[in-house]
Amino acid sequence: MKHNVFYILAGITMCLLITACNPPDQKATGNSIVLADQGSFAIGGTIVKSAGTFDPVNHGAFNPSNQATEGQTLHGDHAYVFYQIPKTPRQLPLVFWHGYGQSAKTWETTPDGRDGFQTIFLRKNFPVYLLDQPGRGRAARRSLPITIPAATDEQLWFGIFRMGTDTTFYPGVQFSKDPEALNQFYRQMVPNTGPFDATVNIAAVSALFDKIGKGILVTHSHSGGQGWSTAIKNRNIKAIVAYEPGSGFVFPNQELPDSIPYLGGVLRASGVPEADFLQLTKIPIIIYYGDYIPTEPTQNPGQEQWRAALSMAKLWRDAVNKKGGDVTLVYLPDIGIKGNTHFPMSDLNNEAIADLMFNWIKEKGLEK
Amino acid sequence: MKHNVFYILAGITMCLLITACNPPDQKATGNSIVLADQGSFAIGGTIVKSAGTFDPVNHGAFNPSNQATEGQTLHGDHAYVFYQIPKTPRQLPLVFWHGYGQSAKTWETTPDGRDGFQTIFLRKNFPVYLLDQPGRGRAARRSLPITIPAATDEQLWFGIFRMGTDTTFYPGVQFSKDPEALNQFYRQMVPNTGPFDATVNIAAVSALFDKIGKGILVTHSHSGGQGWSTAIKNRNIKAIVAYEPGSGFVFPNQELPDSIPYLGGVLRASGVPEADFLQLTKIPIIIYYGDYIPTEPTQNPGQEQWRAALSMAKLWRDAVNKKGGDVTLVYLPDIGIKGNTHFPMSDLNNEAIADLMFNWIKEKGLEK
Repeated sequence: MKHNVFYILAGITMCLLITACNPPDQKATGNSIVLADQGSFAIGGTIVKSAGTFDPVNHGAFNPSNQATEGQTLHGDHAYVFYQIPKTPRQLPLVFWHGYGQSAKTWETTPDGRDGFQTIFLRKNFPVYLLDQPGRGRAARRSLPITIPAATDEQLWFGIFRMGTDTTFYPGVQFSKDPEALNQFYRQMVPNTGPFDATVNIAAVSALFDKIGKGILVTHSHSGGQGWSTAIKNRNIKAIVAYEPGSGFVFPNQELPDSIPYLGGVLRASGVPEADFLQLTKIPIIIYYGDYIPTEPTQNPGQEQWRAALSMAKLWRDAVNKKGGDVTLVYLPDIGIKGNTHFPMSDLNNEAIADLMFNWIKEKGLEK
Repeated sequence: MKHNVFYILAGITMCLLITACNPPDQKATGNSIVLADQGSFAIGGTIVKSAGTFDPVNHGAFNPSNQATEGQTLHGDHAYVFYQIPKTPRQLPLVFWHGYGQSAKTWETTPDGRDGFQTIFLRKNFPVYLLDQPGRGRAARRSLPITIPAATDEQLWFGIFRMGTDTTFYPGVQFSKDPEALNQFYRQMVPNTGPFDATVNIAAVSALFDKIGKGILVTHSHSGGQGWSTAIKNRNIKAIVAYEPGSGFVFPNQELPDSIPYLGGVLRASGVPEADFLQLTKIPIIIYYGDYIPTEPTQNPGQEQWRAALSMAKLWRDAVNKKGGDVTLVYLPDIGIKGNTHFPMSDLNNEAIADLMFNWIKEKGLEK
């Protein structure tokens, strides 16, 4: 009898211990995140040097009103990258590239304080690399000067980011009505700290893929078009997930579609050599757009540019697929997912948005 | 006998399981880092609104050459914070505040690719908060405009940061001679994205301590003086570790020491009301300086400003301690630690530098 009690106690204790410690992956620790490593680095960039000779005695003190520059260098035009490697990593890392007016913050904590894609995909055991492109955030050092105007422009962006119009949210929008969420959302915007230059950005992101090897590129908005160009340049990009690409759709030079006019501008296709274009047929690509994109011209400029972008994206999907590519275009309301803004990765339903992305990666066999 | 074998096996199995799972801290997983949570947010800041009325139809399209600003807002002047909470956290988090020309990158991976204080102290089970002050990095949005000159000035900083002179390292300097390390070091510099304003910075960091509660503030260089002022403002700062504070030493208005001239400038003390000054006597404070700081005037401006700073720091230590404070000043070569630059937290011996800091925190009973 004494023995039997021991058996039972030992069994229960062992089960508890086993439950607590096994399997040794992210699930084992409940909500914990187990990292093998994390860190940050600069990648790519240029070095400029001024003519003349540096005089360390007479020009070696900081003089904010009249700083000597002769014979000195500037390292700029690089990207900044913060990476995290889970303890049991999948083979292909995810590289997250933000959009216009944004930094890597786009992929971190959501405006209403929940996990962003950085942590969601880390919990799914993907190595994650978040970048600030040259001239943004922690990659602010550029080789050319700029004036930052500190312009009041947030209601413009509220419209373009399809939260609503002026200060009124669209009905059913997937964004918290807690004023602190909008406060956080506005504060994740950052200015350009140098003249925008897609060539500089593409060079830095391509250098990142040279360093880390094969991976999946995840773009947002303005980085969408730059993402196609980076994949043409670098064979280590094995798939692209593009949230709401806005411009920079590349077509073969001889097969450019007509430009698409919209209220406030005109969206033009970009031409590349046929051989470059064909690179885009060699990797799977998925494109997602959120809600509130009209099919016909309207008097809402915040929606109009996305009507043009979505129309161009359809032409682009068809052009790539016609030549043997594998591009999927998802307008989220078409699959019953409604209310998404221009930032599906941080909207209230971002876990469901992440699941869609994860399932597509699995479909393509890239989750190993 | 059958029973005895089971006892032994059960005992061994349980021990193995216990060894594998207990203690449930960072050591249990070898080199892994186990996080309960991580994320980022903006803190503090201002909101400005332009006069007039926003016109979403006629001004709702992006116009980079002539953007309308009427009736629109700008959220700026906040800090950006990235935090990580270990699974078994100590009570007091560490808040890391960078210096001039820097962002939170200062505390991340070192220029030669090793763990920085962010990860070193996370492994020691401290919650860590890394901030970009208003007008730097991911907190780039300010409410006032600025022109970024993109000046070639790195040999100036090579001197001021006490790596060496011009392009020649000091003998014995704790900095990797791999050229990639210097490349990374230069690329962690970021410009001001608005006019520097200590009041704005102090308000944002104080707001952070309002949000997170009690903690230990870790400053570097330019944030040193701002750190004293933040501790006067906010009682949640329970200790300060200051690496190489350069200016902003506050004394009672009636007890200001003489200014200290040096080659290239003059270091002045700042006056505060006696009651404010006395706040600094209520928390333990430690100050560390690296190597290559002369005791007598020289013709090396990169060293001269630190001769002035170290001299002022000694006066400041004595002034605080005379009124009952607990300030320790460590010139690292005096305790046999040589070759440190202005960045001890990322120098080659940064693990030893971290141990010094950790031991001091333990001495003060703040490691619980």
